[in-house]
Amino acid sequence: MKEGQIKKFQKERERLNKIVMKYGKTNIKRFYSIDSQTYKAGALSAKTKELLGLVASLVLRCDDCVKYHIIQCRKQKVKDDELEEALSIALVVGGSIVIPHLRRAFEAWKQVHKN
Amino acid sequence: MKEGQIKKFQKERERLNKIVMKYGKTNIKRFYSIDSQTYKAGALSAKTKELLGLVASLVLRCDDCVKYHIIQCRKQKVKDDELEEALSIALVVGGSIVIPHLRRAFEAWKQVHKN
Amino acid sequence: MKEGQIKKFQKERERLNKIVMKYGKTNIKRFYSIDSQTYKAGALSAKTKELLGLVASLVLRCDDCVKYHIIQCRKQKVKDDELEEALSIALVVGGSIVIPHLRRAFEAWKQVHKN
Amino acid sequence: MKEGQIKKFQKERERLNKIVMKYGKTNIKRFYSIDSQTYKAGALSAKTKELLGLVASLVLRCDDCVKYHIIQCRKQKVKDDELEEALSIALVVGGSIVIPHLRRAFEAWKQVHKN
Amino acid sequence: MKEGQIKKFQKERERLNKIVMKYGKTNIKRFYSIDSQTYKAGALSAKTKELLGLVASLVLRCDDCVKYHIIQCRKQKVKDDELEEALSIALVVGGSIVIPHLRRAFEAWKQVHKN
Amino acid sequence: MKEGQIKKFQKERERLNKIVMKYGKTNIKRFYSIDSQTYKAGALSAKTKELLGLVASLVLRCDDCVKYHIIQCRKQKVKDDELEEALSIALVVGGSIVIPHLRRAFEAWKQVHKN
Repeated sequence: MKEGQIKKFQKERERLNKIVMKYGKTNIKRFYSIDSQTYKAGALSAKTKELLGLVASLVLRCDDCVKYHIIQCRKQKVKDDELEEALSIALVVGGSIVIPHLRRAFEAWKQVHKN
Repeated sequence: MKEGQIKKFQKERERLNKIVMKYGKTNIKRFYSIDSQTYKAGALSAKTKELLGLVASLVLRCDDCVKYHIIQCRKQKVKDDELEEALSIALVVGGSIVIPHLRRAFEAWKQVHKN
Repeated sequence: MKEGQIKKFQKERERLNKIVMKYGKTNIKRFYSIDSQTYKAGALSAKTKELLGLVASLVLRCDDCVKYHIIQCRKQKVKDDELEEALSIALVVGGSIVIPHLRRAFEAWKQVHKN
Repeated sequence: MKEGQIKKFQKERERLNKIVMKYGKTNIKRFYSIDSQTYKAGALSAKTKELLGLVASLVLRCDDCVKYHIIQCRKQKVKDDELEEALSIALVVGGSIVIPHLRRAFEAWKQVHKN
Repeated sequence: MKEGQIKKFQKERERLNKIVMKYGKTNIKRFYSIDSQTYKAGALSAKTKELLGLVASLVLRCDDCVKYHIIQCRKQKVKDDELEEALSIALVVGGSIVIPHLRRAFEAWKQVHKN
Repeated sequence: MKEGQIKKFQKERERLNKIVMKYGKTNIKRFYSIDSQTYKAGALSAKTKELLGLVASLVLRCDDCVKYHIIQCRKQKVKDDELEEALSIALVVGGSIVIPHLRRAFEAWKQVHKN
């Protein structure tokens, strides 16, 4: 991922979400709404919730989801060693099959510090 | 996905299937044969079967498979709201991890209407 | 699955859903609500939607979900050969790893005809 | 899950781990060692790590792993609403296919408060 | 798994396969046929193929499939340390989420030596 | 995959692994170490182990992992028909959802013979 790829990723995501919103009706819209509500600070902090979303995304091996939560973790001021420990858990739970996604997760992490 | 990408996708798929057929022996060939038989109209219509294949592909998060079934759904004259309802089920069953693939599914759907 | 197991399954499901509802707050409740809305008849019939839910559940190999949709398919008057064709698609998409769940799906199908 | 099932679960787990240790050599033993190290308090608290393990286990739909982390969450003094929010994230990320495991997660949570 | 459970497992498997064969038509029957052909000795020995089936089943976390291949591995005279190495690969590839299934795999392995 | 893509893949992999090693601490490093130990010749040959890793990667549908093991299989002098039989097992176990990855696996296999 070269410099500027985070912005490119976000723009593409927005472009595609518009297509979803064009076709999507009540259930899809309600799903999107729950999805954003779930990560709001509550009994758990927004930071902890982003780490939960990140680890869930990594063990399920979804690069786009991982990248999204990496960006959110940065916004929530997650530190390098906190991120490393969260990703270690994902690696141990999910196994070596997670490694290609782990690589891209750390690269995205490196990238979000340039913005 | 820009215009023409559906055709590009189909050509690449054909090119790679030739490589599979070059190396593949009886079992792989028989698998391919069952695979195409399974979607033939029977007690269920070919249209319903393509929707089943689409939803199965989406919850398993296989972009290539989703794109293939999107093309087939178009051939079977699936309507916008029918597609939207099938994709909603996949989203609810499979969760937010499905969203990146859902976005690409709707984009492919938009694209197949240009051909 | 011996006779009466469908009822036992439904009772256990209700008992556990009560525990979820005891602890669950807005997001979980809203998720449950979307989940039930999604299968309501619309552009696609309730019957087609149950088949979609069944195939999604089978390729994801969730026995409880499969059993639930088998019961719903029966309510929607799905016929033997329609069910068989839907399950064939799940088998071909999901592979032999699906077979243990396919066995239990057909057993549940046999069972719901006794009730 | 009736009263006493948590203890039964733990005893069975120990019994089976002994069999693994009887057959398992260096690599399996080293894996077990990393596995336990990963959840030790560090930059992230042991409590946060257990929540990460719980959510990862739930989206991957492993009942035994979920139950294990539920027990650990209790030991780490996770509160009801914290647990509920973590499980909500797992539900939204993983979708309705997670629901049968969510039910059993909440039941185990109820159960660990009796011990 | 107590003594005699391997036999019980095989009997149950046969009973359920009869139900599949009662409902299943051409595609399901052809799938079953490919499934059994694939493990026949060829360029790779039947023993190697059973190990491949075992590892595939374990990373996909299907207990029934694992148990079936454990029985087949025993028939193919797989040795303890060969089995341990195959299972180690599955553990490393699939991660700690595999552990509950690994435990049951080794227990089944212990069990097949009593028959 | 055009000529030269295997080398490009390997270079990118190395570049990203350096980023992992920059951020990763003890647990991640130990995981990487177990990962490489597991494929060393022992009771099973290195060749058999690479086939096991390949099939595990294919049923879990990880293109990068598949490509890596395809390269290793070539180094271990796996023959065309041995590879084809291993991939057949992955196809049958994992189902048609595996096909897009199977295509790329055979293409990578074709490619490694040009280097």
